[in-house]
Amino acid sequence: MGLAKRLLEGDPRAAARLISMVEDGDPHVAEILAELYPHTGKAHVVGITGSPGVGKSTLIQALVRSLIKSGKRVGVIAVDPSSPFGGGALLGDRLRMQDLTTEEGVFIRSMGTRGAAGGLSAATGEAVDILDAMGMDVVMVETVGSGQAEVSVAGIAHTCVVVTMPGSGDDIQAMKAGLMEIGDIFVVNKADLPGAEEILRTLQNALHLDPRDRDRLPPVIRTISTTGEGVDRLLDEITRHRSYLMERGLWEERFRRRVLQEVMDLVMAELKNRLMRSLAGGERCAAILRRLLETREIDPFTAAREILSDLMGTGA
Amino acid sequence: MGLAKRLLEGDPRAAARLISMVEDGDPHVAEILAELYPHTGKAHVVGITGSPGVGKSTLIQALVRSLIKSGKRVGVIAVDPSSPFGGGALLGDRLRMQDLTTEEGVFIRSMGTRGAAGGLSAATGEAVDILDAMGMDVVMVETVGSGQAEVSVAGIAHTCVVVTMPGSGDDIQAMKAGLMEIGDIFVVNKADLPGAEEILRTLQNALHLDPRDRDRLPPVIRTISTTGEGVDRLLDEITRHRSYLMERGLWEERFRRRVLQEVMDLVMAELKNRLMRSLAGGERCAAILRRLLETREIDPFTAAREILSDLMGTGA
Repeated sequence: MGLAKRLLEGDPRAAARLISMVEDGDPHVAEILAELYPHTGKAHVVGITGSPGVGKSTLIQALVRSLIKSGKRVGVIAVDPSSPFGGGALLGDRLRMQDLTTEEGVFIRSMGTRGAAGGLSAATGEAVDILDAMGMDVVMVETVGSGQAEVSVAGIAHTCVVVTMPGSGDDIQAMKAGLMEIGDIFVVNKADLPGAEEILRTLQNALHLDPRDRDRLPPVIRTISTTGEGVDRLLDEITRHRSYLMERGLWEERFRRRVLQEVMDLVMAELKNRLMRSLAGGERCAAILRRLLETREIDPFTAAREILSDLMGTGA
Repeated sequence: MGLAKRLLEGDPRAAARLISMVEDGDPHVAEILAELYPHTGKAHVVGITGSPGVGKSTLIQALVRSLIKSGKRVGVIAVDPSSPFGGGALLGDRLRMQDLTTEEGVFIRSMGTRGAAGGLSAATGEAVDILDAMGMDVVMVETVGSGQAEVSVAGIAHTCVVVTMPGSGDDIQAMKAGLMEIGDIFVVNKADLPGAEEILRTLQNALHLDPRDRDRLPPVIRTISTTGEGVDRLLDEITRHRSYLMERGLWEERFRRRVLQEVMDLVMAELKNRLMRSLAGGERCAAILRRLLETREIDPFTAAREILSDLMGTGA
C-alpha cells in the first residue's frame, strides 16, 4: 500500500516516514502531499510559542494528556532551531516528551531542517498537513518565539498561544515587539514563582491598550505546568477559540492563510535555490561579483540589481 | 553638504539620519550607500550573540568602555526582534546603554525593521557599512542568537562572540544546533553564578570534539560583566582574533562574505516584494489561488510551481 493511503488510514509509521522525507527534502514528497491535500483542513492547529525555558514542552505534555482523556487524537510538532550548517533536529524535546509517545492517539515529532525543500517553515507546514490528513483532531506546533521567528506559528495556526513566565523582562519586550499581536491566548506559566501577578497585569494592560480593532480580548491564563494547575482552563480557552473562529467564519480563513504561507515558503525557497546556483556557478554572476568584491567598481545595490535581472532572465 | 560627505567626516548625526533612512526603506539610501561602499572594509566587525538575559548589553558596555580608554572609536548596533506588523525598534537596549551615548567616539543604535528594503538582516548589514565608512575602529553587532537567527552575525562579523551563562541548558542545546559552529570566541557570563564550571567544561569539551578541521581552538572565557571581571581578557581575545584573521588572509574573506550576504538579502527581499505584489494583485496569481483555496483543484506544490513561472515570466 502506498504511503499516502497508509497515512490516510492513520498509520503513525507512515506519518513518521513522510515527515522524515519532508525533512530530507525527498523529491517524492510533492506528489504524496498533493494526494493528501484534499484531506487537510480539519485539524485544529494550535501554535505554542515562547522563549526557551518558559516550560512550553511541559505545558504541551499536560495539554496532550487532557486531550487524550477526552478521546481526542493529538499530534505535536516541536520545531527546533537547527544548524544552518547541516545540523539536524535536537533530541531534547523528543526525550522530554517520550513518556507520551507510547500513548494511543498521540504522535510527537521534533522537526529540523536537514535539507527540506522550503526551509524549516515550509517543512513545519507540511508536517502539519501530514498530521491533519492522518486524522488528528488537534495538531500542536511548538516554536521558540521571538518577534520574527523563522517559523511563524501565526501563519500556520488557527489558535496561537503565547507562553511567558514571571521575571521575564525580555519576554515582555518581545511581546511588545510582535508576540502581543499574534497571540490569541496568553499564558503565564510557572505562576507560583515571584512576579507572576506583575507579568499578568502587564500583559492585561498591554492587551487593553492594544490599538488593533478587536472584538475579542485574548485571555491571560496562569498555569503551573508541572502540577497541571490552570491547564484545564487553558484547554477550555483553546476550545472556545475554535468555536469563536467557526462562528465568525474565520476557521476557513486561517486554514487558507496556512496554505498560502506554505506556497510562499515553497516559492521563496525555490527562488533562493536558483539564486544560490547562480552565485555558485553562473558566469554572468561571477563577473558581477568580481566587479563588486575585487575591483570594487560597483556597490551591493548595483550588484543586487544586476544579479536579479540575470536571475529573472535565466528563468524566463 | 551631502549626507555621505558628512558621514565620511565622522558626523554622528549623519550616521543616525542614514540608519533611520535604512530602517524606513527610504529610496535614496541606495545611492548614498553606493557612495560609501568604497570606504568600507576597515572596521573590525564583532558579532555578540546569545539568548535573552545572558547579559550581552552589559558586556558590550564594558567592552566599549575599555575600547574608548585605549582611544578606539566604537559603533554598536543592537538588533531587536521587531514586529512583523510594523513594530519598530525596542527602546530597552538604547535605554540600558544610554550612559555611554554621550561619550566621545561612541555611536550606539538599536535597529528594527520599520520598512527596510531588504528586511532586518540587510538593514543591519547596511548600518554596519555606515559605521564602518564613518571611521569606527570596531563595530559591534548585538543579536539574540538561536540556531538560525533572522540576522546572522556569522555572515556579517569578522569575529563572532557567543555569550552564554550558567544553568542555561537550552543554550547548550542551541550551541549544539548551530551556535557552536559560528563562534570564534565563547563567553560564560555571570560566571559567579552556580554552574559556571559545568558550562565552561561542557563548552570546552564540545569544542574539542568539534568535527570541523580547525587550526584554531576558540577560547572559552569567564566574565562577570557587571563587575568587569574577564572583560579585558575578552577584549584581548577579540584583538587576537583580528590578528589571526589578518595573518591568515581571512580578514578580506570575511568582509567579502558580509558584502555577499548583503547582496543576497537585497535580492531575496526584492524577489519577496515581487511575489507579494503578484499574490496581491496579479490576475494569473488570483486564478491560481482560487484553484488552490476555493475549488481545491490543485495542491500547494503545484500552486507554487505555477506562481513561480508566472513570476519569472513577468520579470523577464
